[in-house]
Amino acid sequence: MNTPRSFLFSPGNSRRKIEKGAVSAAHALVLDLEDGVALSAKPEARAVIRQAAQELDFGDKLCLVRLNGVKSALLNDDLAALAGAGLDGYILPKVESAAEIQQLHQLLNEAGEPDAIIYALLESALGVIHAPEIAAFPTLRGLMFGGEDFVASIKGKATAERSEILYARSALVTAARAYQLEAIDTIYIDYDDLEGLSREAKFARTLGFSGKFCIHPQQVELVNSGFQPSAAEIATAQAIVSAYEEHFKHGIGVFSFEGRMIDEAVVQQMRQLL
Amino acid sequence: MNTPRSFLFSPGNSRRKIEKGAVSAAHALVLDLEDGVALSAKPEARAVIRQAAQELDFGDKLCLVRLNGVKSALLNDDLAALAGAGLDGYILPKVESAAEIQQLHQLLNEAGEPDAIIYALLESALGVIHAPEIAAFPTLRGLMFGGEDFVASIKGKATAERSEILYARSALVTAARAYQLEAIDTIYIDYDDLEGLSREAKFARTLGFSGKFCIHPQQVELVNSGFQPSAAEIATAQAIVSAYEEHFKHGIGVFSFEGRMIDEAVVQQMRQLL
Amino acid sequence: MNTPRSFLFSPGNSRRKIEKGAVSAAHALVLDLEDGVALSAKPEARAVIRQAAQELDFGDKLCLVRLNGVKSALLNDDLAALAGAGLDGYILPKVESAAEIQQLHQLLNEAGEPDAIIYALLESALGVIHAPEIAAFPTLRGLMFGGEDFVASIKGKATAERSEILYARSALVTAARAYQLEAIDTIYIDYDDLEGLSREAKFARTLGFSGKFCIHPQQVELVNSGFQPSAAEIATAQAIVSAYEEHFKHGIGVFSFEGRMIDEAVVQQMRQLL
Repeated sequence: MNTPRSFLFSPGNSRRKIEKGAVSAAHALVLDLEDGVALSAKPEARAVIRQAAQELDFGDKLCLVRLNGVKSALLNDDLAALAGAGLDGYILPKVESAAEIQQLHQLLNEAGEPDAIIYALLESALGVIHAPEIAAFPTLRGLMFGGEDFVASIKGKATAERSEILYARSALVTAARAYQLEAIDTIYIDYDDLEGLSREAKFARTLGFSGKFCIHPQQVELVNSGFQPSAAEIATAQAIVSAYEEHFKHGIGVFSFEGRMIDEAVVQQMRQLL
Repeated sequence: MNTPRSFLFSPGNSRRKIEKGAVSAAHALVLDLEDGVALSAKPEARAVIRQAAQELDFGDKLCLVRLNGVKSALLNDDLAALAGAGLDGYILPKVESAAEIQQLHQLLNEAGEPDAIIYALLESALGVIHAPEIAAFPTLRGLMFGGEDFVASIKGKATAERSEILYARSALVTAARAYQLEAIDTIYIDYDDLEGLSREAKFARTLGFSGKFCIHPQQVELVNSGFQPSAAEIATAQAIVSAYEEHFKHGIGVFSFEGRMIDEAVVQQMRQLL
Repeated sequence: MNTPRSFLFSPGNSRRKIEKGAVSAAHALVLDLEDGVALSAKPEARAVIRQAAQELDFGDKLCLVRLNGVKSALLNDDLAALAGAGLDGYILPKVESAAEIQQLHQLLNEAGEPDAIIYALLESALGVIHAPEIAAFPTLRGLMFGGEDFVASIKGKATAERSEILYARSALVTAARAYQLEAIDTIYIDYDDLEGLSREAKFARTLGFSGKFCIHPQQVELVNSGFQPSAAEIATAQAIVSAYEEHFKHGIGVFSFEGRMIDEAVVQQMRQLL
């Protein structure tokens, strides 16, 4: 499967929204048991998710559940209800140490799901500080960034420019990429501002994120396309790679292409794009 | 006491400036024994501060002294002169390791002031690198950022845009907030540029700083108000929290409010603002 | 010797380009054995460099070779060919740990060049994460940033604004300066865009870089001047330092100068500039 770009949230207690997610263009569905579901509704949500996972056709979407965190005392009940339901994997929220991933890994082993995908959602100052040690934990698929919780954690203020999360975004991407993990960007909260979303998805791609959370089906296409290189980018990349291979045959590792210096590093960027 | 926003410097050897500080609207006074006082004037400054601390009425201001650093060979004399003078606490400058905080903590214990407040002023590249370990030291009240010294330390150049300190500011805030500490932003050097100051105070608030140093009494009000949410922000925050509580009763943890998605994370930001 | 500003790359297998570099205004020449030279051309490049090092007059330029990395299986052959050729030092590319510097240091000892200068080129997410531990290795002269490789490593996208490398640049500078090392900025790839280069060199200086790579002789002068303070800056710096020394005689460590507060930290910046 290709790298998933769009991760669409659906509240775990809404069969209707899960069904809408299942027919959306999202690359991954996030069936939520955590902050999108109030405490009183968690048992119902577990049952709804289990049934949906067994009945619905998710196509080639990644089907993930956002669990409650290790410190919540709800995690064991989440896993007891969901084990064996055929989910692809889990998102562990509010992660602040590698020990929490270790704990989930252990619980999944005991639940007979040793190969379930695990994403770590980092959304606090402490989580960002520990991002490198978390990313180094061997069984992880990706780091995800929870920007709204992070801003609450640093007692900052969310702005349109998002300067308050630039450091955390880059720190998280750098940690994730250092260990060959996916890096998933935070939600875009104003779900009617599609232009702003599109700009932010493209920006997240430049920063090194591989995908982005969505909170509404109408965000999905723009996130997918925001992480997609344009036709012009692809054409340039192909031309540069071809020119590089031609030069390389003659022992030349660095050359000029339309006023830019091309070497191995640039070619590597182009190959990733293709 | 509420979180202090404005930390006003007064040179320790100027009784007149200390008196002006005492009647200002600053939330905290910083009586300086360090870089604001030349070596020859330090003994006089210690005596002036001791007498001022005993004679002046500081209202509900936090009364702090910026000591000389652990590496300066002046710290023992500072504490010998000030112990028991009734100060609220101390700012340790040029901190580069948790061991320095440990050392001050030990000296304060010996001086009979085990409960004095300690802030760590980080103002070098090495201090910023060690910010997480410093913030983790158990008895600290806050981290403070010395931007001018930091720029000298990295051999950079201070600019109006302040790109050269954005990384360090965010690194320091993230470390401070990871351990539930206050985070105090650097001075604004052009003390006649009140508009620039106001912009910078508001920006520092978005980044997660809880307060900011002042070098002139005319800066105090703008720093206080820069960290204060506007009436419109407060009204919105109250409406969001009310709506969240109403939804929560019905098992709903995520809902729509004026085109934005509201969940626990957003509500936490709003509660902090209130 | 003064701090070198411009580090000009020449492919190691091009005697002609090495000769052009030798007569350029670059402060340091980087004779490349790594990505600028295809695998088949490496033996020839080693011979060309050895001969050039022995025959050409490099004036007071620093004469460096960019070796192949520790993981490349080419490094021993590089050093066997170059030891004793009279080079000033080496740039180790793709460094991701202090152990790699240790390994080169050991090899240089064995090759009879214990005092050769070593720069570490960091150009991956993991390298940036380990920048502090690498910088702390005792025998290093500087950290260098490989921006194009770094962008490939985080799977980001190179933009004109360079937001995607701001974090890594500041992290690298902070690590380098924490251990009194030089910090050399990445190349500017569009070698015909001299205005953009000049802007970027000046910006790199504000961030704390001490110099910058060049990929074309026409970039050298602009890099040299971009790291040079202007006449007005120098005049202001001299006036501030004089005023500070005058005040200091009277016990005053902080004073006002043209609407700005001057203290030890500002004076330290000014002294570095001079």
